[in-house]
Amino acid sequence: MTTRYGRFALRDGSTVFARVDGESLRVQDAAPWLGGKETGVVQPSAETTRLCPVTPSKILCIGRNYHAHVKEMGGELPKEPLLFLKPTSSLLDPGGVVILPPESSRVEHESELGVVIAKKGRRIPVERAMEHVLGYTIVGDITARDLQKSDGQWSRAKGFDTFCPVGPDIVAGVDPCALSIRGRVNGQTRQDGNTRDMIFDVARLVSHLSQAMTLEAGDLIATGTPEGVGPLVDGDVFEIEIESLGTLRVTVRREGA
Amino acid sequence: MTTRYGRFALRDGSTVFARVDGESLRVQDAAPWLGGKETGVVQPSAETTRLCPVTPSKILCIGRNYHAHVKEMGGELPKEPLLFLKPTSSLLDPGGVVILPPESSRVEHESELGVVIAKKGRRIPVERAMEHVLGYTIVGDITARDLQKSDGQWSRAKGFDTFCPVGPDIVAGVDPCALSIRGRVNGQTRQDGNTRDMIFDVARLVSHLSQAMTLEAGDLIATGTPEGVGPLVDGDVFEIEIESLGTLRVTVRREGA
Repeated sequence: MTTRYGRFALRDGSTVFARVDGESLRVQDAAPWLGGKETGVVQPSAETTRLCPVTPSKILCIGRNYHAHVKEMGGELPKEPLLFLKPTSSLLDPGGVVILPPESSRVEHESELGVVIAKKGRRIPVERAMEHVLGYTIVGDITARDLQKSDGQWSRAKGFDTFCPVGPDIVAGVDPCALSIRGRVNGQTRQDGNTRDMIFDVARLVSHLSQAMTLEAGDLIATGTPEGVGPLVDGDVFEIEIESLGTLRVTVRREGA
Repeated sequence: MTTRYGRFALRDGSTVFARVDGESLRVQDAAPWLGGKETGVVQPSAETTRLCPVTPSKILCIGRNYHAHVKEMGGELPKEPLLFLKPTSSLLDPGGVVILPPESSRVEHESELGVVIAKKGRRIPVERAMEHVLGYTIVGDITARDLQKSDGQWSRAKGFDTFCPVGPDIVAGVDPCALSIRGRVNGQTRQDGNTRDMIFDVARLVSHLSQAMTLEAGDLIATGTPEGVGPLVDGDVFEIEIESLGTLRVTVRREGA
Protein backbone atom coordinates (compact mmCIF):
# COMPACT_ATOMS: atom_id res chain seq x y z
CA MET A 1 0.00 0.00 0.00
CA THR A 2 1.71 3.20 -1.17
CA THR A 3 0.76 6.81 -0.51
CA ARG A 4 1.82 9.71 -2.74
CA TYR A 5 2.37 13.29 -1.56
CA GLY A 6 3.11 16.32 -3.70
CA ARG A 7 3.35 20.08 -3.53
CA PHE A 8 1.26 22.20 -5.86
CA ALA A 9 0.70 25.79 -6.93
CA LEU A 10 -3.01 26.62 -7.15
CA ARG A 11 -4.54 29.10 -9.61
CA ASP A 12 -4.87 31.72 -6.85
CA GLY A 13 -1.07 31.65 -6.46
CA SER A 14 -1.04 29.78 -3.14
CA THR A 15 1.05 26.68 -2.54
CA VAL A 16 -0.24 23.51 -0.85
CA PHE A 17 0.89 20.04 0.10
CA ALA A 18 -1.58 17.34 -0.92
CA ARG A 19 -2.04 13.61 -1.01
CA VAL A 20 -2.27 12.52 -4.63
CA ASP A 21 -5.38 10.34 -5.15
CA GLY A 22 -5.53 9.63 -8.88
CA GLU A 23 -6.57 12.90 -10.55
CA SER A 24 -7.68 14.37 -7.20
CA LEU A 25 -5.41 16.21 -4.80
CA ARG A 26 -6.48 15.93 -1.16
CA VAL A 27 -5.12 19.14 0.31
CA GLN A 28 -3.20 18.97 3.60
CA ASP A 29 -2.74 21.65 6.26
CA ALA A 30 1.04 21.14 6.44
CA ALA A 31 3.90 19.21 4.86
CA PRO A 32 3.72 15.43 5.39
CA TRP A 33 6.96 15.52 7.46
CA LEU A 34 5.30 18.05 9.77
CA GLY A 35 2.34 15.79 10.42
CA GLY A 36 0.04 17.45 7.85
CA LYS A 37 -3.62 16.37 7.99
CA GLU A 38 -6.16 16.44 5.18
CA THR A 39 -8.34 19.57 5.27
CA GLY A 40 -11.22 18.04 3.30
CA VAL A 41 -10.52 20.30 0.33
CA VAL A 42 -10.12 18.37 -2.92
CA GLN A 43 -8.47 19.98 -5.92
CA PRO A 44 -8.48 18.56 -9.47
CA SER A 45 -4.81 18.09 -10.38
CA ALA A 46 -5.40 19.53 -13.86
CA GLU A 47 -5.99 22.94 -12.28
CA THR A 48 -2.64 23.01 -10.49
CA THR A 49 1.08 23.18 -11.26
CA ARG A 50 3.31 20.53 -9.73
CA LEU A 51 6.18 21.89 -7.64
CA CYS A 52 9.28 20.28 -6.17
CA PRO A 53 7.70 18.06 -3.46
CA VAL A 54 10.36 18.81 -0.83
CA THR A 55 11.44 21.99 0.98
CA PRO A 56 14.48 20.61 2.84
CA SER A 57 16.76 22.47 5.25
CA LYS A 58 19.63 20.61 3.57
CA ILE A 59 20.28 18.28 0.64
CA LEU A 60 22.71 15.50 1.54
CA CYS A 61 24.23 13.66 -1.41
CA ILE A 62 26.26 10.49 -1.66
CA GLY A 63 29.08 10.03 -4.14
CA ARG A 64 30.33 6.70 -5.49
CA ASN A 65 27.50 4.51 -4.19
CA TYR A 66 27.13 2.10 -7.16
CA HIS A 67 29.98 -0.26 -8.06
CA ALA A 68 29.77 0.24 -11.82
CA HIS A 69 29.64 4.05 -11.51
CA VAL A 70 32.75 4.07 -9.33
CA LYS A 71 34.44 2.05 -12.07
CA GLU A 72 33.35 4.39 -14.89
CA MET A 73 34.64 7.42 -12.93
CA GLY A 74 37.96 5.68 -12.28
CA GLY A 75 37.73 5.96 -8.49
CA GLU A 76 38.22 3.57 -5.60
CA LEU A 77 35.40 1.80 -3.78
CA PRO A 78 34.58 3.83 -0.67
CA LYS A 79 34.97 2.31 2.80
CA GLU A 80 32.17 4.52 4.09
CA PRO A 81 29.58 6.73 2.38
CA LEU A 82 31.07 9.86 0.78
CA LEU A 83 28.97 12.92 1.68
CA PHE A 84 28.63 16.18 -0.18
CA LEU A 85 25.98 18.90 0.01
CA LYS A 86 23.93 20.67 -2.65
CA PRO A 87 22.47 24.09 -1.76
CA THR A 88 18.68 24.38 -1.55
CA SER A 89 18.91 27.16 -4.16
CA SER A 90 19.66 24.43 -6.73
CA LEU A 91 16.20 22.80 -6.38
CA LEU A 92 14.09 22.62 -9.55
CA ASP A 93 10.40 21.77 -10.01
CA PRO A 94 9.35 18.75 -12.09
CA GLY A 95 8.91 19.91 -15.67
CA GLY A 96 11.41 22.70 -15.10
CA VAL A 97 14.38 23.81 -17.15
CA VAL A 98 17.97 22.87 -16.27
CA ILE A 99 20.11 25.87 -17.25
CA LEU A 100 23.60 25.09 -18.58
CA PRO A 101 25.92 27.87 -17.32
CA PRO A 102 28.68 29.34 -19.50
CA GLU A 103 31.24 28.45 -16.79
CA SER A 104 31.02 24.76 -17.80
CA SER A 105 31.53 23.05 -21.12
CA ARG A 106 30.38 19.64 -19.83
CA VAL A 107 27.24 19.30 -17.72
CA GLU A 108 26.19 15.71 -17.02
CA HIS A 109 23.09 13.91 -15.77
CA GLU A 110 23.02 11.63 -12.73
CA SER A 111 19.81 9.74 -11.87
CA GLU A 112 19.18 9.07 -8.20
CA LEU A 113 16.77 7.70 -5.64
CA GLY A 114 15.88 10.42 -3.12
CA VAL A 115 15.05 9.73 0.53
CA VAL A 116 12.83 12.17 2.46
CA ILE A 117 13.38 12.31 6.22
CA ALA A 118 10.27 11.90 8.41
CA LYS A 119 11.55 13.12 11.76
CA LYS A 120 14.55 14.76 13.35
CA GLY A 121 17.38 12.53 14.51
CA ARG A 122 21.07 12.35 15.39
CA ARG A 123 23.20 9.20 15.80
CA ILE A 124 20.38 7.01 14.55
CA PRO A 125 21.27 3.29 14.79
CA VAL A 126 20.98 1.34 11.51
CA GLU A 127 18.19 -0.80 12.95
CA ARG A 128 16.06 2.28 13.65
CA ALA A 129 16.98 4.22 10.50
CA MET A 130 13.89 3.29 8.49
CA GLU A 131 11.66 4.86 11.17
CA HIS A 132 13.20 8.17 10.10
CA VAL A 133 12.24 7.73 6.43
CA LEU A 134 8.98 9.28 5.23
CA GLY A 135 9.24 8.11 1.63
CA TYR A 136 11.10 8.28 -1.64
CA THR A 137 11.35 10.58 -4.62
CA ILE A 138 13.48 11.05 -7.74
CA VAL A 139 16.49 13.39 -7.78
CA GLY A 140 18.62 14.57 -10.69
CA ASP A 141 22.13 15.32 -9.44
CA ILE A 142 23.13 17.56 -12.33
CA THR A 143 26.90 18.05 -12.36
CA ALA A 144 29.33 20.34 -14.21
CA ARG A 145 31.87 17.57 -14.69
CA ASP A 146 34.73 19.83 -15.78
CA LEU A 147 34.34 22.11 -12.73
CA GLN A 148 33.95 19.11 -10.43
CA LYS A 149 37.43 18.02 -11.49
CA SER A 150 39.11 21.45 -11.58
CA ASP A 151 37.60 22.73 -8.30
CA GLY A 152 38.33 19.60 -6.26
CA GLN A 153 35.48 20.41 -3.90
CA TRP A 154 32.17 19.60 -5.61
CA SER A 155 29.94 22.31 -4.11
CA ARG A 156 30.03 24.68 -7.09
CA ALA A 157 29.97 22.02 -9.83
CA LYS A 158 26.86 20.43 -8.32
CA GLY A 159 25.38 23.60 -6.84
CA PHE A 160 24.32 25.79 -9.76
CA ASP A 161 20.73 26.99 -9.77
CA THR A 162 18.44 24.34 -11.39
CA PHE A 163 20.99 21.52 -10.83
CA CYS A 164 18.70 19.61 -8.44
CA PRO A 165 15.39 18.65 -10.08
CA VAL A 166 13.21 16.65 -7.64
CA GLY A 167 9.85 14.92 -7.99
CA PRO A 168 7.24 14.32 -9.16
CA ASP A 169 5.97 13.05 -5.78
CA ILE A 170 7.10 11.63 -2.47
CA VAL A 171 5.96 8.00 -2.30
CA ALA A 172 5.57 6.32 1.09
CA GLY A 173 5.23 2.58 1.61
CA VAL A 174 7.76 1.49 -1.02
CA ASP A 175 10.60 -0.96 -0.36
CA PRO A 176 13.72 0.84 -1.69
CA CYS A 177 15.91 -2.26 -1.87
CA ALA A 178 15.43 -3.32 -5.49
CA LEU A 179 13.94 -0.57 -7.64
CA SER A 180 14.91 -0.20 -11.28
CA ILE A 181 16.25 3.27 -12.05
CA ARG A 182 16.59 4.59 -15.60
CA GLY A 183 17.91 7.83 -17.03
CA ARG A 184 16.83 8.80 -20.55
CA VAL A 185 17.92 11.65 -22.81
CA ASN A 186 15.55 12.44 -25.69
CA GLY A 187 13.94 9.02 -25.20
CA GLN A 188 17.23 7.07 -25.35
CA THR A 189 18.18 5.09 -22.26
CA ARG A 190 21.53 6.25 -20.92
CA GLN A 191 21.39 4.85 -17.39
CA ASP A 192 19.78 1.52 -16.49
CA GLY A 193 20.47 0.49 -12.94
CA ASN A 194 18.85 -0.93 -9.86
CA THR A 195 18.98 0.26 -6.26
CA ARG A 196 20.02 -3.27 -5.20
CA ASP A 197 23.46 -2.39 -6.57
CA MET A 198 23.99 0.38 -4.03
CA ILE A 199 27.17 -0.09 -2.00
CA PHE A 200 25.48 1.41 1.09
CA ASP A 201 21.72 0.92 1.37
CA VAL A 202 19.18 3.48 2.59
CA ALA A 203 19.33 2.42 6.24
CA ARG A 204 23.14 2.55 6.27
CA LEU A 205 23.12 5.99 4.65
CA VAL A 206 20.58 7.48 7.07
CA SER A 207 22.45 6.10 10.05
CA HIS A 208 25.89 7.14 8.78
CA LEU A 209 24.92 10.71 7.88
CA SER A 210 23.22 11.17 11.24
CA GLN A 211 26.49 10.33 13.03
CA ALA A 212 27.83 13.67 11.82
CA MET A 213 24.79 15.89 11.65
CA THR A 214 21.22 16.15 12.84
CA LEU A 215 18.82 15.08 10.09
CA GLU A 216 15.79 17.39 10.16
CA ALA A 217 12.25 16.42 9.19
CA GLY A 218 11.93 17.11 5.47
CA ASP A 219 15.65 16.83 4.68
CA LEU A 220 16.51 15.17 1.37
CA ILE A 221 19.17 12.51 0.76
CA ALA A 222 20.26 11.77 -2.82
CA THR A 223 21.65 8.26 -2.71
CA GLY A 224 24.11 8.28 -5.61
CA THR A 225 23.89 7.41 -9.29
CA PRO A 226 24.28 4.15 -11.18
CA GLU A 227 26.60 4.04 -14.19
CA GLY A 228 25.92 5.62 -17.56
CA VAL A 229 26.32 9.30 -16.72
CA GLY A 230 26.79 11.53 -19.74
CA PRO A 231 26.44 15.02 -21.16
CA LEU A 232 23.34 17.21 -21.47
CA VAL A 233 23.13 19.82 -24.22
CA ASP A 234 20.80 22.64 -25.16
CA GLY A 235 17.38 21.31 -26.15
CA ASP A 236 17.66 17.91 -24.47
CA VAL A 237 14.77 16.32 -22.61
CA PHE A 238 16.09 14.44 -19.58
CA GLU A 239 13.91 11.90 -17.78
CA ILE A 240 14.51 9.73 -14.75
CA GLU A 241 12.15 6.81 -14.18
CA ILE A 242 12.23 4.86 -10.94
CA GLU A 243 10.07 1.79 -10.41
CA SER A 244 7.02 2.52 -8.21
CA LEU A 245 7.88 6.25 -8.08
CA GLY A 246 7.14 7.49 -11.60
CA THR A 247 9.04 9.73 -13.99
CA LEU A 248 10.76 13.07 -13.39
CA ARG A 249 11.12 15.04 -16.64
CA VAL A 250 13.05 18.25 -17.24
CA THR A 251 14.27 20.08 -20.31
CA VAL A 252 17.72 21.57 -20.83
CA ARG A 253 18.66 25.05 -22.09
CA ARG A 254 21.96 26.84 -22.39
CA GLU A 255 21.93 30.06 -20.34
CA GLY A 256 20.96 33.00 -22.54
CA ALA A 257 19.80 30.69 -25.37
CA MET B 1 28.14 54.89 12.04
CA THR B 2 27.61 51.20 12.79
CA THR B 3 24.39 49.37 13.67
CA ARG B 4 24.30 46.07 15.55
CA TYR B 5 21.59 43.43 15.18
CA GLY B 6 21.19 40.25 17.19
CA ARG B 7 18.77 37.43 17.82
CA PHE B 8 17.62 36.72 21.35
CA ALA B 9 15.59 34.24 23.38
CA LEU B 10 13.26 36.00 25.84
CA ARG B 11 12.24 34.63 29.23
CA ASP B 12 8.81 33.63 27.86
CA GLY B 13 10.60 31.29 25.42
CA SER B 14 9.98 33.41 22.33
CA THR B 15 12.75 34.43 19.92
CA VAL B 16 13.19 37.96 18.54
CA PHE B 17 15.50 39.95 16.33
CA ALA B 18 16.56 43.25 17.86
CA ARG B 19 18.81 46.22 17.27
CA VAL B 20 21.43 46.28 20.02
CA ASP B 21 21.55 49.74 21.62
CA GLY B 22 24.02 49.44 24.52
CA GLU B 23 22.28 47.38 27.19
CA SER B 24 18.89 47.85 25.52
CA LEU B 25 17.50 45.62 22.80
CA ARG B 26 15.11 47.39 20.45
CA VAL B 27 12.87 44.56 19.31
CA GLN B 28 12.15 44.23 15.57
CA ASP B 29 9.16 42.64 13.85
CA ALA B 30 11.31 40.59 11.48
CA ALA B 31 14.92 39.74 10.66
CA PRO B 32 16.99 42.69 9.42
CA TRP B 33 17.43 41.03 6.00
CA LEU B 34 13.64 40.83 5.70
CA GLY B 35 13.25 44.55 6.31
CA GLY B 36 12.39 44.23 10.02
CA LYS B 37 11.15 47.43 11.69
CA GLU B 38 11.38 48.34 15.37
CA THR B 39 8.19 47.54 17.25
CA GLY B 40 8.79 50.05 20.06
CA VAL B 41 9.35 47.25 22.58
CA VAL B 42 12.64 47.61 24.46
CA GLN B 43 14.11 44.63 26.29
CA PRO B 44 17.01 44.81 28.78
CA SER B 45 19.71 42.55 27.34
CA ALA B 46 20.42 41.07 30.79
CA GLU B 47 17.01 39.35 30.68
CA THR B 48 17.69 37.55 27.40
CA THR B 49 19.91 34.84 25.95
CA ARG B 50 21.93 35.65 22.87
CA LEU B 51 21.33 33.30 19.94
CA CYS B 52 23.15 32.79 16.67
CA PRO B 53 22.27 36.06 14.85
CA VAL B 54 21.66 34.42 11.46
CA THR B 55 19.13 31.87 10.18
CA PRO B 56 20.53 31.32 6.67
CA SER B 57 19.13 29.10 3.93
CA LYS B 58 22.75 28.15 3.22
CA ILE B 59 26.25 28.68 4.62
CA LEU B 60 28.80 29.32 1.87
CA CYS B 61 32.43 28.95 2.91
CA ILE B 62 35.68 29.85 1.20
CA GLY B 63 38.79 27.72 1.49
CA ARG B 64 42.37 28.99 1.04
CA ASN B 65 41.63 32.73 1.08
CA TYR B 66 44.67 33.98 3.05
CA HIS B 67 48.16 33.58 1.59
CA ALA B 68 49.85 32.46 4.81
CA HIS B 69 47.11 29.88 5.57
CA VAL B 70 47.44 28.37 2.10
CA LYS B 71 51.17 28.06 2.84
CA GLU B 72 50.66 26.40 6.24
CA MET B 73 48.26 23.86 4.70
CA GLY B 74 50.71 23.10 1.89
CA GLY B 75 48.30 23.94 -0.92
CA GLU B 76 48.51 26.06 -4.05
CA LEU B 77 47.19 29.61 -4.33
CA PRO B 78 43.72 29.42 -5.84
CA LYS B 79 42.97 31.12 -9.18
CA GLU B 80 39.37 31.66 -8.10
CA PRO B 81 37.57 31.36 -4.75
CA LEU B 82 37.18 27.76 -3.56
CA LEU B 83 33.60 27.13 -2.36
CA PHE B 84 32.34 24.57 0.09
CA LEU B 85 29.11 24.38 2.09
CA LYS B 86 28.41 23.82 5.76
CA PRO B 87 24.93 22.51 6.69
CA THR B 88 22.68 24.84 8.72
CA SER B 89 22.45 22.05 11.31
CA SER B 90 26.05 22.90 12.30
CA LEU B 91 25.15 26.41 13.56
CA LEU B 92 25.97 27.15 17.21
CA ASP B 93 24.91 30.06 19.42
CA PRO B 94 27.50 32.42 20.94
CA GLY B 95 28.53 31.00 24.30
CA GLY B 96 27.66 27.51 23.12
CA VAL B 97 29.60 24.28 23.35
CA VAL B 98 31.55 22.83 20.43
CA ILE B 99 31.25 19.05 20.72
CA LEU B 100 34.27 16.99 19.63
CA PRO B 101 32.93 13.80 18.01
CA PRO B 102 34.61 10.43 18.56
CA GLU B 103 35.00 10.04 14.77
CA SER B 104 37.85 12.58 14.80
CA SER B 105 41.09 12.69 16.72
CA ARG B 106 42.02 16.20 15.52
CA VAL B 107 39.44 18.99 15.53
CA GLU B 108 40.85 22.43 14.69
CA HIS B 109 39.74 26.06 15.00
CA GLU B 110 39.47 28.46 12.07
CA SER B 111 38.59 32.12 12.73
CA GLU B 112 36.65 33.91 10.00
CA LEU B 113 34.87 37.07 9.00
CA GLY B 114 31.23 36.31 8.16
CA VAL B 115 29.21 38.22 5.56
CA VAL B 116 25.41 38.38 5.85
CA ILE B 117 23.49 38.84 2.61
CA ALA B 118 20.94 41.69 2.50
CA LYS B 119 18.92 40.77 -0.57
CA LYS B 120 18.48 38.04 -3.11
CA GLY B 121 20.75 38.07 -6.14
CA ARG B 122 22.27 36.03 -8.96
CA ARG B 123 25.16 36.98 -11.24
CA ILE B 124 25.86 40.10 -9.19
CA PRO B 125 28.60 42.25 -10.78
CA VAL B 126 31.57 43.04 -8.50
CA GLU B 127 30.74 46.75 -8.57
CA ARG B 128 27.23 46.09 -7.20
CA ALA B 129 28.20 43.34 -4.76
CA MET B 130 28.36 45.54 -1.64
CA GLU B 131 24.69 46.52 -2.15
CA HIS B 132 23.92 42.86 -1.36
CA VAL B 133 25.78 42.90 1.97
CA LEU B 134 23.77 43.62 5.12
CA GLY B 135 26.69 43.43 7.54
CA TYR B 136 29.37 41.31 9.15
CA THR B 137 29.66 38.77 11.92
CA ILE B 138 32.19 36.30 13.31
CA VAL B 139 32.24 32.65 12.23
CA GLY B 140 34.17 29.70 13.63
CA ASP B 141 34.76 27.18 10.84
CA ILE B 142 35.44 24.23 13.12
CA THR B 143 37.07 21.41 11.16
CA ALA B 144 37.85 17.74 11.83
CA ARG B 145 41.23 17.96 10.10
CA ASP B 146 41.83 14.21 9.92
CA LEU B 147 38.44 13.56 8.28
CA GLN B 148 38.90 16.51 5.94
CA LYS B 149 41.99 14.77 4.58
CA SER B 150 40.66 11.21 4.53
CA ASP B 151 37.20 12.05 3.09
CA GLY B 152 38.47 14.31 0.30
CA GLN B 153 35.17 16.16 0.21
CA TRP B 154 34.97 18.49 3.23
CA SER B 155 31.24 18.35 3.96
CA ARG B 156 31.41 15.88 6.83
CA ALA B 157 34.64 17.17 8.40
CA LYS B 158 33.23 20.70 8.56
CA GLY B 159 29.57 19.74 8.98
CA PHE B 160 29.25 18.15 12.42
CA ASP B 161 26.63 19.63 14.72
CA THR B 162 28.10 22.64 16.66
CA PHE B 163 30.92 23.14 14.09
CA CYS B 164 29.67 26.58 13.02
CA PRO B 165 29.52 29.04 15.94
CA VAL B 166 28.34 32.47 14.75
CA GLY B 167 27.95 35.84 16.49
CA PRO B 168 27.66 37.67 18.73
CA ASP B 169 25.94 40.23 16.45
CA ILE B 170 25.60 41.32 12.85
CA VAL B 171 27.28 44.71 12.47
CA ALA B 172 26.27 46.99 9.60
CA GLY B 173 28.24 50.03 8.48
CA VAL B 174 31.72 48.52 8.88
CA ASP B 175 34.39 48.59 6.17
CA PRO B 176 35.58 44.94 5.93
CA CYS B 177 38.81 45.70 4.07
CA ALA B 178 41.29 45.91 6.97
CA LEU B 179 39.94 44.36 10.16
CA SER B 180 42.23 42.60 12.61
CA ILE B 181 41.09 39.03 13.30
CA ARG B 182 42.39 37.02 16.25
CA GLY B 183 41.77 33.48 17.42
CA ARG B 184 42.57 32.65 21.05
CA VAL B 185 42.52 29.34 22.91
CA ASN B 186 42.40 29.63 26.70
CA GLY B 187 43.52 33.25 26.40
CA GLN B 188 46.56 32.46 24.20
CA THR B 189 46.61 34.03 20.75
CA ARG B 190 46.82 31.32 18.08
CA GLN B 191 45.68 33.27 15.05
CA ASP B 192 46.52 36.92 14.44
CA GLY B 193 45.56 38.08 10.96
CA ASN B 194 43.93 40.90 9.10
CA THR B 195 41.20 40.83 6.47
CA ARG B 196 43.43 42.95 4.19
CA ASP B 197 45.40 39.73 3.56
CA MET B 198 42.43 38.02 1.92
CA ILE B 199 43.23 36.78 -1.57
CA PHE B 200 39.66 37.53 -2.72
CA ASP B 201 37.89 40.41 -0.96
CA VAL B 202 34.24 40.52 0.10
CA ALA B 203 32.96 42.07 -3.13
CA ARG B 204 34.81 39.50 -5.25
CA LEU B 205 33.46 36.65 -3.12
CA VAL B 206 29.84 37.82 -3.25
CA SER B 207 30.03 38.32 -7.00
CA HIS B 208 31.83 35.02 -7.65
CA LEU B 209 29.51 32.87 -5.54
CA SER B 210 26.45 34.46 -7.15
CA GLN B 211 27.69 33.37 -10.59
CA ALA B 212 26.86 29.79 -9.57
CA MET B 213 23.95 30.13 -7.21
CA THR B 214 21.28 32.56 -6.07
CA LEU B 215 22.29 34.23 -2.82
CA GLU B 216 19.20 34.57 -0.63
CA ALA B 217 18.57 37.35 1.88
CA GLY B 218 20.04 36.15 5.17
CA ASP B 219 22.56 33.73 3.66
CA LEU B 220 25.93 33.57 5.38
CA ILE B 221 29.37 33.58 3.74
CA ALA B 222 32.42 32.55 5.80
CA THR B 223 35.37 34.20 4.07
CA GLY B 224 38.23 31.88 5.01
CA THR B 225 40.73 31.75 7.83
CA PRO B 226 44.12 33.38 8.34
CA GLU B 227 47.08 31.22 9.38
CA GLY B 228 47.58 29.73 12.82
CA VAL B 229 44.92 27.02 12.82
CA GLY B 230 45.41 24.41 15.49
CA PRO B 231 43.74 21.76 17.66
CA LEU B 232 40.90 22.14 20.16
CA VAL B 233 40.62 19.74 23.10
CA ASP B 234 38.13 19.00 25.83
CA GLY B 235 37.81 21.94 28.21
CA ASP B 236 39.22 24.61 25.89
CA VAL B 237 37.74 28.09 25.65
CA PHE B 238 37.95 29.32 22.06
CA GLU B 239 37.48 32.99 21.24
CA ILE B 240 37.52 34.89 17.98
CA GLU B 241 37.87 38.67 18.14
CA ILE B 242 37.37 40.81 15.05
CA GLU B 243 37.97 44.56 15.11
CA SER B 244 34.70 46.55 15.25
CA LEU B 245 32.64 43.33 15.55
CA GLY B 246 33.44 42.06 19.06
CA THR B 247 34.29 38.64 20.44
CA LEU B 248 32.65 35.27 19.81
CA ARG B 249 33.36 32.84 22.66
CA VAL B 250 32.59 29.12 22.83
CA THR B 251 33.74 26.26 25.01
CA VAL B 252 34.82 22.82 23.86
CA ARG B 253 33.73 19.39 25.18
CA ARG B 254 34.42 15.89 24.01
CA GLU B 255 31.17 14.08 23.18
CA GLY B 256 29.98 12.10 26.17
CA ALA B 257 32.45 13.85 28.51
